[in-house]
Amino acid sequence: MTHKYRTIAAHYSRAIETGLLPVGERLPSLRELADLHRVSLATTVEACRLLERQGYVEARPRAGYFVRHPKRSAACHAGQPGRAAEPDEPRIDAADYVGVHERISVMLARAMQRAPEVDLARAVCAPAMYPGAALKNHALRILRARPSLYDASPDPGGVSRLKEAIARVSITRGLDLDPGAVLVTHGCSEALSLALRAVTSPGDVVAIESPCYFGILQILESLGLRALELPTDPQRGLSPEALEIALRRPGGVQAVICTPALHNPLGSIMPDDAKARLVESCERSGVPLIEDDSYGALLPNPAHARPLKSWDRTGNVIHCSSLNKTVSPGARIGWLTGGKWQNRIEMLMYAVSRHREEIPQLAVADYLTSGAFHRQMRRMQTQLARQRALLAQAIAEHFPAGTELTRPAAGLLLWVTLPGRTDTDRLFERALHEGIRISPGSMFSNTGRFGHCLRLSAGMPFDSRIEAAVERLGQLVRELPS
Amino acid sequence: MTHKYRTIAAHYSRAIETGLLPVGERLPSLRELADLHRVSLATTVEACRLLERQGYVEARPRAGYFVRHPKRSAACHAGQPGRAAEPDEPRIDAADYVGVHERISVMLARAMQRAPEVDLARAVCAPAMYPGAALKNHALRILRARPSLYDASPDPGGVSRLKEAIARVSITRGLDLDPGAVLVTHGCSEALSLALRAVTSPGDVVAIESPCYFGILQILESLGLRALELPTDPQRGLSPEALEIALRRPGGVQAVICTPALHNPLGSIMPDDAKARLVESCERSGVPLIEDDSYGALLPNPAHARPLKSWDRTGNVIHCSSLNKTVSPGARIGWLTGGKWQNRIEMLMYAVSRHREEIPQLAVADYLTSGAFHRQMRRMQTQLARQRALLAQAIAEHFPAGTELTRPAAGLLLWVTLPGRTDTDRLFERALHEGIRISPGSMFSNTGRFGHCLRLSAGMPFDSRIEAAVERLGQLVRELPS
Repeated sequence: MTHKYRTIAAHYSRAIETGLLPVGERLPSLRELADLHRVSLATTVEACRLLERQGYVEARPRAGYFVRHPKRSAACHAGQPGRAAEPDEPRIDAADYVGVHERISVMLARAMQRAPEVDLARAVCAPAMYPGAALKNHALRILRARPSLYDASPDPGGVSRLKEAIARVSITRGLDLDPGAVLVTHGCSEALSLALRAVTSPGDVVAIESPCYFGILQILESLGLRALELPTDPQRGLSPEALEIALRRPGGVQAVICTPALHNPLGSIMPDDAKARLVESCERSGVPLIEDDSYGALLPNPAHARPLKSWDRTGNVIHCSSLNKTVSPGARIGWLTGGKWQNRIEMLMYAVSRHREEIPQLAVADYLTSGAFHRQMRRMQTQLARQRALLAQAIAEHFPAGTELTRPAAGLLLWVTLPGRTDTDRLFERALHEGIRISPGSMFSNTGRFGHCLRLSAGMPFDSRIEAAVERLGQLVRELPS
Repeated sequence: MTHKYRTIAAHYSRAIETGLLPVGERLPSLRELADLHRVSLATTVEACRLLERQGYVEARPRAGYFVRHPKRSAACHAGQPGRAAEPDEPRIDAADYVGVHERISVMLARAMQRAPEVDLARAVCAPAMYPGAALKNHALRILRARPSLYDASPDPGGVSRLKEAIARVSITRGLDLDPGAVLVTHGCSEALSLALRAVTSPGDVVAIESPCYFGILQILESLGLRALELPTDPQRGLSPEALEIALRRPGGVQAVICTPALHNPLGSIMPDDAKARLVESCERSGVPLIEDDSYGALLPNPAHARPLKSWDRTGNVIHCSSLNKTVSPGARIGWLTGGKWQNRIEMLMYAVSRHREEIPQLAVADYLTSGAFHRQMRRMQTQLARQRALLAQAIAEHFPAGTELTRPAAGLLLWVTLPGRTDTDRLFERALHEGIRISPGSMFSNTGRFGHCLRLSAGMPFDSRIEAAVERLGQLVRELPS
């Protein structure tokens, strides 16, 4: 059990490390800190003294605590995966965002140039873990029963049967969805993109988790938006305190994207109190909150699974999700429910992609309502737990001492932090050359903060080929300068 | 055969009517006009004198010809469908564009509230005219042969087999496509939207045809772009001269969208010399040209069918198309080839909709390469010619004297101009009330210039119900004030 003052100090040290609180900035006053964190004044005094001892802030008489130039030694505290490797220049608002998108795209293109022998990069499960045979049979039956599906335009916004099925499976997650307000999209990427287009204009700042799924970074750049990367804990996810600081800054942020359930790449799960607080702060500040729930259905414990949207009383949360990870990577079914921006989002979607093809929607709807879905989720959860454990064990065995990795409670992703400053972009190139595909940490941030990290997927059944690949990766890490 | 000076004068009178040349603006000098239109000085003198007699311009000694306040009588010249009904205020750049999108969406939503008994609005053919049975059989075969299509992510950018099939059928249109540079999209709307996002920024001005397919107006508004509506001839399509004037204005335009083959709603077909000239002017001005070729495959005469893209030597033309009108409204297959913006477009597409579902792509690819496609196009052309003729005849019989309508050489759309100032928004409401769906002219422009026009689709086989609906429409027109 950590003391409260340590938790508070840790939030601010992370905010300082990520550049959210730049050098020279005044911390909130002791009284403001007490209000903000709902603690006593004595606790805030202790927190600030700790920050001072750690070298993050300096006290100026009668003026308060100010962020100071980081001491290198203070910037890395152990046991924190994804910590700052080399915080040369604190980044504040990532204004010069253009380019990251191209960098990621080039990396993805390079990764796809040759079929790897072992793919530890794709955040997707082995084909055999998906119910392809059932979906195929549903599709065959639908095609025979409705032979003229290809002859007429589908209804815009998605077929009702699928919307109802989505609403039905959401109930078990504590989410009451109106099927009429579900908009079927081309995967979660389109849903997130539509949500952002509805609530922002080019040049706006969007607060995101750091590290962040690279697809979100690509969407932000493609829409001319700027990212503010917020400290994100490998266990508890996005820091609501850091977000509150960001919301109070002049100019602030115009939207927030959060992945509370099984964050990609960290696998973190936000506790319910943090989720409630996040929804409330965004609501109070009038800043739209966009929830990415792509992995939520993989949570075995329903107590962890309540989406942010279930706390939303005013329509301020746009809930985005998809079945690409859970049911079918091939059917490309995503959805959103847009809260108070529903009409605007429907218009934007209609203007761009209009109707969408009905057969996969109908096949997936039949599957979701067949009862097989919940059985498959349980099977997948068990299998992924085993695959994660075996992959983690192999990493512990073959990677150099000092390597840290997340141990998420569910999902298919592990986030590995290498000791020292090992450049995982170089590791990516060398591994690719040997037929092994990984996702280097540089793809998950615009700050260069995760250049010594990598994401590995445990989506494939663990076998001797994967074991050999992990062993080889460990050797390659050792060969690189750290 | 009209005289050259009349043609030139007509171009400028239309530019003045549409507000492209605002009151007080100086016309190009006589010498500039001679250069621009490649005619003698004597011809330009005659053209300007005609414009003066018609009341469009006034001569100011030693200064040139200036646009004057339009005389109402001069603003309407007979025999020109879609002429200005009430040019109260010449519009210049449609800067206050916001709102048209919502207006169109509201109208579409109203139209969809109840299933009409007779739908003359949808620009689509009767289901029986599409090869649904063949596509269904292809899809069944594909599902049986590749039962795990739903279990894995498709390749981004579309399946190779479809790209090759698209390139193959394009050859007959005089277009040499590199299959590797074909990007499969969700219909032509997504293709146009991606093209615009690649070459413009919010606030930019895009030159479009007037009237213009409302879907393009929606896309422009959704991207924060402004429309400059250019005079478009019901026979010859977009006026390259008007575009050249627009390109020479300070600020000019940042992109051009053109539908050279079977323009929606006019059905116009640009002559080859105009197409070549358009491609050249855009190239010379460094302004990207976006081609919408959704209807091109319906042209029976291959001499008319060459896309703008076939004149492109520098990659300045982005060619967008779809199979929604011709092969399958249900499969939602569109594509584009992006010229020099190919990489940027691929990135933008990957950021938003990523992979797309493979089964309809494979089914359509098999169909396109089966030979049945060309036979179906010929059958469809013959059937549509008959349906257009019968619908036109019914309109001539039942609508009031003075009604004008286009007689396009192919396609499924007729554009009707009512005599006087009959408000087709009101006609739309009354017709909807009686179970008849039409597209009022107000949807096709931001200028209010086509408030007395309507678009009717000849996509459905002409029968007694359609005949009765046209008769009823004619009665409703007579009941409205003109």
